[in-house]
Formats: sequence, structure tokens, C-alpha cells
Amino acid sequence: MRIAVLGTGTVGRTIATKLVDLGHEVTMGSRSSDSEALRDWLKDAGEAAGGGSFADAAAAAELVFNCTAGGASLDALAAAGADNLAGKILVDVANPLDFSHGMPPTLTVCNDDSLGERIQAAVPQAKVVKALNTVNAEVMVAPEKVGGDHALFICGNDDTAKSETTALLESFGWPGRRVIDLGDISAARGMEMYLPLWLRLMGSLETPEFNIEVHKA
Amino acid sequence: MRIAVLGTGTVGRTIATKLVDLGHEVTMGSRSSDSEALRDWLKDAGEAAGGGSFADAAAAAELVFNCTAGGASLDALAAAGADNLAGKILVDVANPLDFSHGMPPTLTVCNDDSLGERIQAAVPQAKVVKALNTVNAEVMVAPEKVGGDHALFICGNDDTAKSETTALLESFGWPGRRVIDLGDISAARGMEMYLPLWLRLMGSLETPEFNIEVHKA
Repeated sequence: MRIAVLGTGTVGRTIATKLVDLGHEVTMGSRSSDSEALRDWLKDAGEAAGGGSFADAAAAAELVFNCTAGGASLDALAAAGADNLAGKILVDVANPLDFSHGMPPTLTVCNDDSLGERIQAAVPQAKVVKALNTVNAEVMVAPEKVGGDHALFICGNDDTAKSETTALLESFGWPGRRVIDLGDISAARGMEMYLPLWLRLMGSLETPEFNIEVHKA
Repeated sequence: MRIAVLGTGTVGRTIATKLVDLGHEVTMGSRSSDSEALRDWLKDAGEAAGGGSFADAAAAAELVFNCTAGGASLDALAAAGADNLAGKILVDVANPLDFSHGMPPTLTVCNDDSLGERIQAAVPQAKVVKALNTVNAEVMVAPEKVGGDHALFICGNDDTAKSETTALLESFGWPGRRVIDLGDISAARGMEMYLPLWLRLMGSLETPEFNIEVHKA
């Protein structure tokens, strides 16, 4: 598949590399099409990898990952262009973390709204699926690193888009039965508001490589 | 131990009944000392159980559970009286859920503050330990209902208070190794902000009787 990965940080590079390894044609999108992070990634990424502006990347793709920092996501998607995203699955991995007031970060949006919902509202023709934001980048693409039947959450308004995203997550190593559909995009509130607990757990466990399993009675 | 349980709702009655079963002297505190919920509970609660106002209950106790609704907790603790809580462990089970705008509820406080922190600030002489708010009332007192090594989180500023609370939780059936200390009371933000995810999981799993296990790499 032709896939765009918007964002050249750790999450973007990790997911883009995994997608290349899986045989996809990947275009990494960056604010600037000659950014150093982009050139660094492209150096080792192989022939199926390309790079460009957010708009270049989105235009070329059938499916788009938003891996930009949460605070920059809406600007990045505006730069990508609503027309370039229309009709496409937009997998939103971002968390609206605000580090400007020091540690621990707060969320720039929460409680009665979420970044996932704001993105869906900003690009209503895209099929936004929130996924992967509840685990560290390494765990996203190598879930087998963590023991147990740990879970991934997804949400979004389009069932077909969620099924296709789940299939892609299965190719990352997540068994489909461990991908829990939480419903429409407003469930992004819960998925994003989990971050403060995740950050505290990272402190107590002394590693970012962990995840949660859901058990029911 | 002489224990006060403030709040006559499902959580308060469930915890108070468990404490009586474990042999503690339990006084349930209510806004009104002749409330119907209180009289109902006392009818079957046995001789080690008593009831009264929030102040009566707190005054008689060595340790206090706050099981009031989150929106009513600060008023209830003011009624209990700072003097009656001074020097005592105050286990805060409440969630600051606001149902006034319909479903799903929002939180009345979150992100850069939490109910746990507000309670600690309101009764600075009490040793507030946030615990049990991440599971359903039945799971709180019967964790064995849920399979797997599922976890409970605690936080608070006083390490001895957390150790004593952990011992009490062990008597409820929670193995100490499954009680994860998230640090000082500001971790209550994460524990309370988990609720929107919990509520969505309840919807997807079609039961409130579930919990999460933490796995690390």
C-alpha cells in the first residue's frame, strides 16, 4: 500500500521503518521537505521510501498516519491539505501533550473534547481512526516485546476504516482479538486521557516499554 | 480497627460490608444521620456496625474511607471536620464524575489538578491515599472475580499511610505485589483521568466487572 507518515520524530520514524519492512511504499511527510530528520531517515530507508512536505506525502498516499506532536497536528494536517486527505484513512497516533509548563505534561485538550475529535472535525472527509497512542513507539511496532495478552484500543466513526486499520495493526504483530474497538471518535477522550496514568506508570515501572491487558469477570 | 466509611451509595455500602466481614468496627457516615440508605444498611450489618453523621463517623474512626460521590466529597469532608480527620489515613475512593451534562460524564476537575489533590489540600492534616477508584465496587472487595494479575493503583504523600492502606487492600484480596504505588498525591490525576477510558471499556466489554493488568518488557 502507498502510505504517508506525517511527522519525523521517534514515532514517525519507527512506524515508517516498520511499514517499509512490511513492503509498503512509504512517504514521510515533514513541515519542510528538506528537514534534517527526514534526510537522516531516508538515508537508510531503502528504495520504497520517499519524503516530502506534508502535502506531498498525503497526496501520494492511500492511507495516512498522523505521527506529529499533538500540539502541531492540526497545523500539520492543514498543511497536508483537506483535499489530499479526503476519503482516506487517517490513523491518528498523536497525544495532545503540553510540556510548556514543565513535567508532568498536561493535555492541551481533554474531558469534553479530544485531539482525535478535533482532527476529525478539521478534516471531515477523512476517516480518522485513533490508534497506537497508548503505547511507546517500540511497543507499537514490536508488541511481542511485552509479555501477556496486552491490548490496543481503537476508535473512529467509520467501521470499515477501523477494520482496515486493525488488519494493518495485525501486520505489526497485534493479534486482532487484542485490538479493542471503543466506538466512535469521541472515545479518543479516554484514549488520550489515559496518558497521565501511562506517564506515572512509566515512572513506577522505570521503563516506557509496557502495556495493559484487560481482564473481565 | 475502627473504620469510618463516608457515603451510603453502592461503593460505601460494599466497602463497609466487606470491612464488617473482616472483623472491623465500622461506622458509616451520611449527610443525615437518619438517612434511609444508612438505616437500610444498618438493618443487616450486624453489631460491629454503626452509623451517624459524617462528623460522628470520622470522630469515632482510626481510618476513614471517602466513598461519597466525587462532586459531594469536599462538602462531605468539610462536614466530617478537619479535626476529626487530622492524623488519620483518608482513603479516597471517589471519582469527580459530572453527570449533569448527560452521558458520558465529564470530570469536574482534571489535567492540572485532581479530586485527590483537592481533598489533601482541604484536609492537610489527614494522610490522603487515593485507591480503588479504578475498579467497580464488586471488584474492589472481590478482586478474585476477575482473572489474571490485574492491578490496583495507589498514590499519596505519606509512605506509611500507603503501606497501611496496602495491607488493608491485601485483606480485601489484592496481593500486595499487584498494588502499584504511583507516587505522591498528584498521581491522582492519572488515576481519575483513566475513568473516561474505563467507561468506554465498560461499554465495549458489556460489563463493569473488569480490570487491567500491567505487563512490562
